[in-house]
Amino acid sequence: MDKNEILKLIRSRRSIRKFREQNIPEETVFEILEAGIWAPSGLNNQPWRFIIIKDRDLRDKISRLTKYSRIITAADFCIAVFYNKPAGYDRDKDLMAIGSCIQNMLLYSHSAGIGSVWLGEILKNKQEIHGVFEIDESCEFMALLAFGIPDEAPSSARSDISSMMLKPSL
Amino acid sequence: MDKNEILKLIRSRRSIRKFREQNIPEETVFEILEAGIWAPSGLNNQPWRFIIIKDRDLRDKISRLTKYSRIITAADFCIAVFYNKPAGYDRDKDLMAIGSCIQNMLLYSHSAGIGSVWLGEILKNKQEIHGVFEIDESCEFMALLAFGIPDEAPSSARSDISSMMLKPSL
Repeated sequence: MDKNEILKLIRSRRSIRKFREQNIPEETVFEILEAGIWAPSGLNNQPWRFIIIKDRDLRDKISRLTKYSRIITAADFCIAVFYNKPAGYDRDKDLMAIGSCIQNMLLYSHSAGIGSVWLGEILKNKQEIHGVFEIDESCEFMALLAFGIPDEAPSSARSDISSMMLKPSL
Repeated sequence: MDKNEILKLIRSRRSIRKFREQNIPEETVFEILEAGIWAPSGLNNQPWRFIIIKDRDLRDKISRLTKYSRIITAADFCIAVFYNKPAGYDRDKDLMAIGSCIQNMLLYSHSAGIGSVWLGEILKNKQEIHGVFEIDESCEFMALLAFGIPDEAPSSARSDISSMMLKPSL
């Protein structure tokens, strides 16, 4: 694969918050998860766990736990991402691995023409989410990803690389 | 970009710990960082900071802080990734964003034929690393990435997706 193509993909991915009413095949949902699980993790401990959420009633219930409820109800499906604490060995490293896993899912879905957004504000109601899913204490809710066919094309921006360097090259 | 190509790229990326003695152009190093900074972050806070490490003496110094010293000395260059705490708003979310940024860098470098490995064990000597780089308390060392032309083709494995599902699809 051409490196320019992947850089283009990475740069053109956006957080999509408006979706068309269009069904995404279940096969594609599992391809997105497949992309996720090939992320690296410390000691290859794969500390992520997932729930695919398609059911309307369940989404309504979850959507009441965030101010971004309209994104969740408008999405075709959501993936809830959890930290499987018994598989973990270092919280910082495990959370970075989960971030890596999420990025794979966002990038893959973007390449498949599917828009997505990584929702974090809903974590304020982590305990309520655990309750809705009847999750025991071993797993901790870490992110909600909403997916659907994009109905917007937002722009985004990043700071210059130079401002991100702690030191000049050493 | 074809979704099968990105899935192939994601699945074929490996942690590369043996490198050939071959120079990677500085331009490519900055392309890798460019891929990194286009990761998503909560509130687009971009909580990552970087140091590019090419200097041999400096790498020798760092390599003494980990049992994986040979990887660091054999690499063509390393990128140290830091958490910029003043930019942060939620440690969990910020660390996942940094993981997402790292994954972009690993994927892009793989597409460019460059091998890489994400080193975490060296975090046990976080304070010493801060000292080597003369970093103040605002930034926290989070990962060391080593890059070079691959001199090995290791295999890897992941658990079945089914074993990663907390619940069947809901």
